[in-house]
Amino acid sequence: MSDFRQKALDYHSKPVPGKISVELTKPAESVTDLALAYSPGVAEPVREIAADPSAAYLYTGKGNMVAVITNGTAILGLGNLGPLASKPVMEGKALLFKRFAGLDSIDIEVKHNTTEEFINTVANIADTFGGINLEDIKAPECFEIEQELIKRCSVPVFHDDQHGTAIVTAAGMLNALEIQGKKINEVNIVCMGAGAAAVACMELLIKCGAQRERIYMLDRKGVIHTRRDDLTPHKLLFANNTDKRTLDDVMEGADVFVGVSGPDVLPAATLQLMAPNPVIFACSNPDPEIKPELANKTRSDLIMATGRSDYPNQVNNVLCFPFIFRGALDVRASKINDEMKIAAVDAIRSIAKEPVPQQVLDASDVDSLEFGRQYIIPKPMDPRLCKRVATAVAQAAIDSGVAAITALPKNYLEQ
Amino acid sequence: MSDFRQKALDYHSKPVPGKISVELTKPAESVTDLALAYSPGVAEPVREIAADPSAAYLYTGKGNMVAVITNGTAILGLGNLGPLASKPVMEGKALLFKRFAGLDSIDIEVKHNTTEEFINTVANIADTFGGINLEDIKAPECFEIEQELIKRCSVPVFHDDQHGTAIVTAAGMLNALEIQGKKINEVNIVCMGAGAAAVACMELLIKCGAQRERIYMLDRKGVIHTRRDDLTPHKLLFANNTDKRTLDDVMEGADVFVGVSGPDVLPAATLQLMAPNPVIFACSNPDPEIKPELANKTRSDLIMATGRSDYPNQVNNVLCFPFIFRGALDVRASKINDEMKIAAVDAIRSIAKEPVPQQVLDASDVDSLEFGRQYIIPKPMDPRLCKRVATAVAQAAIDSGVAAITALPKNYLEQ
Repeated sequence: MSDFRQKALDYHSKPVPGKISVELTKPAESVTDLALAYSPGVAEPVREIAADPSAAYLYTGKGNMVAVITNGTAILGLGNLGPLASKPVMEGKALLFKRFAGLDSIDIEVKHNTTEEFINTVANIADTFGGINLEDIKAPECFEIEQELIKRCSVPVFHDDQHGTAIVTAAGMLNALEIQGKKINEVNIVCMGAGAAAVACMELLIKCGAQRERIYMLDRKGVIHTRRDDLTPHKLLFANNTDKRTLDDVMEGADVFVGVSGPDVLPAATLQLMAPNPVIFACSNPDPEIKPELANKTRSDLIMATGRSDYPNQVNNVLCFPFIFRGALDVRASKINDEMKIAAVDAIRSIAKEPVPQQVLDASDVDSLEFGRQYIIPKPMDPRLCKRVATAVAQAAIDSGVAAITALPKNYLEQ
Repeated sequence: MSDFRQKALDYHSKPVPGKISVELTKPAESVTDLALAYSPGVAEPVREIAADPSAAYLYTGKGNMVAVITNGTAILGLGNLGPLASKPVMEGKALLFKRFAGLDSIDIEVKHNTTEEFINTVANIADTFGGINLEDIKAPECFEIEQELIKRCSVPVFHDDQHGTAIVTAAGMLNALEIQGKKINEVNIVCMGAGAAAVACMELLIKCGAQRERIYMLDRKGVIHTRRDDLTPHKLLFANNTDKRTLDDVMEGADVFVGVSGPDVLPAATLQLMAPNPVIFACSNPDPEIKPELANKTRSDLIMATGRSDYPNQVNNVLCFPFIFRGALDVRASKINDEMKIAAVDAIRSIAKEPVPQQVLDASDVDSLEFGRQYIIPKPMDPRLCKRVATAVAQAAIDSGVAAITALPKNYLEQ
């Protein structure tokens, strides 16, 4: 067994199984404490909530609680291993919510037969929580599931594999294009992969200015074009009216490559076909679509991002999801809308352009980080993210009319 | 607003809303920590669980996690106020699980249309947890819900309002009868109330030796007898072939009164009708079926228990539910069967007969507690409960063949 594998198993099993626990936030020692916490005192907040449901935010943990919900059909890069096997990932996500944004978070693994049954199950328990983070649900079911749950739930529902990935990708991409001197509405984009993340990334880039007809999406059968008759509704949105059929066809003169597919599918010769000063996001994990060493050796004019922490420009969802929920919950947003997503993109972008705090340099083990080819996105350990992203998201929720609380406290999220 | 009411609301809202939080049990500071907790390290326990589902107990928090699940149809004494309003009670239950047995516990409030939909919802999420505590679900639906979920879930499902109440009642009752010099198989029992707790209490007393034909159960219409044609299946089990119709009819010569109904339904004159040395469990909360002062003034030969902490002999579910789950989870029992319930009864009984630790006297604010009329059940703060009850339950699970772990560790639950 490799050393890392053993360390990972030990981390999860010792000294106690798992990574999260439930703890008390109130005293529960004396008989008096318990009379307040439970019978008879607990009847008082019950009556308050029965009279006014919003009192649940005052007297229970609802407003700080995010459920991480999955059916285990698309676990990380491992595929459909079922709900139980996904539990370490979901508990890991809960850990990240707490670690980065102070949100209480609990995992729920759902077994089900039909998609409708999954939707009903989640909708039935949704009011327990302040928000719902859908996770590791395979496409195309994930699209219907998220859309239907957004309709049926009064709390925000957010499929992080789609929108978290899209927000961080868009932030990095817009910064990379700025450095390369390209305009988002003029670039030709190749998207390798047509799953949940791919679709969400392209839709958000379009909302940020990209032209749909300049996007070439590829699935396992090649370029998605208007003459194919095997397309799901979400692929159909990206069917390009083109004669191009292969990766090489569409990479010829392309400005941007976004890979959300699999390892080593982008050969060096294909990279050579791209326009000058290209941007390569090779986000397949752990092995990117092209190895950074090979890409950099092939072209010196590119900007490259991956999903890995051991190379520059890591596209990591943790830059977004803890804070988008922090902001959404703090103003009791009923949903996470496009305005809030774009506010998160802008906030993440802006942080990368500012001087980096010493503690980030220390955590990253580097002497300096300056906005440029090797630093287009903030580092996950950047302590500015929480306040900046959450504030931007919360304000966007207020401004777009989906927030129940319409003003942020003066010292919001200040230490 | 009363002082207590204000204190209860303050307790629930200050300094943070609610009573529980989720915390990390593993380090999550460095990039290395996060690589173990989440991607890529988390893939290792995922693979282990995919290969062997029981590995979930080794690598996740499942084995220490109890879900407290309700639909809010029978909240404490408050009735059907819906799922959201029940949340403070469910979080309170979660708090008690942690406080008394070190179990992590989280509340889930379920909205639903049909009973089947509630069952499906809970069954679909059940594998997330090590056990499921059903709570505050009204009769008669609670019977079908529990039975069906026990069939469909691989983890223990336990409706505490039924069986927790029954176990503590049986423990106290058997001790009271012992003190009064009566035999359980010879006593005539009047059960005022025919809801979930009443049915479960009587069924468990029968398993402990009570004779079904000596039990007279009453609902709002009076004695439940064989000539009534309005009985639900669970009431039908207690239809007595008798000409007695009123409370006074059945109380004439009765040895035991169990009240799980409402306040002040037992008049002093009716109490006078009972046999010598009767046992009165007046468990309606907060106002018992007869006030202890009135009962004691009416008869000096009785033993009385209530649901209240400010009188002797409190029937409090917290004597049981944290520990029955502790024991069940620690041996990975697939269910909580009668053997385990009776083991809990015996363990609780035996503790009441032993000298009381000083800390219990201090917490109870008394100089002494000796097995007798004023002390038939242990106090909730008794630190012996956890180890004794959980050990008995776990051993019973092992002996009855429902445990996946078949030996307790040598120092099980020793401090």
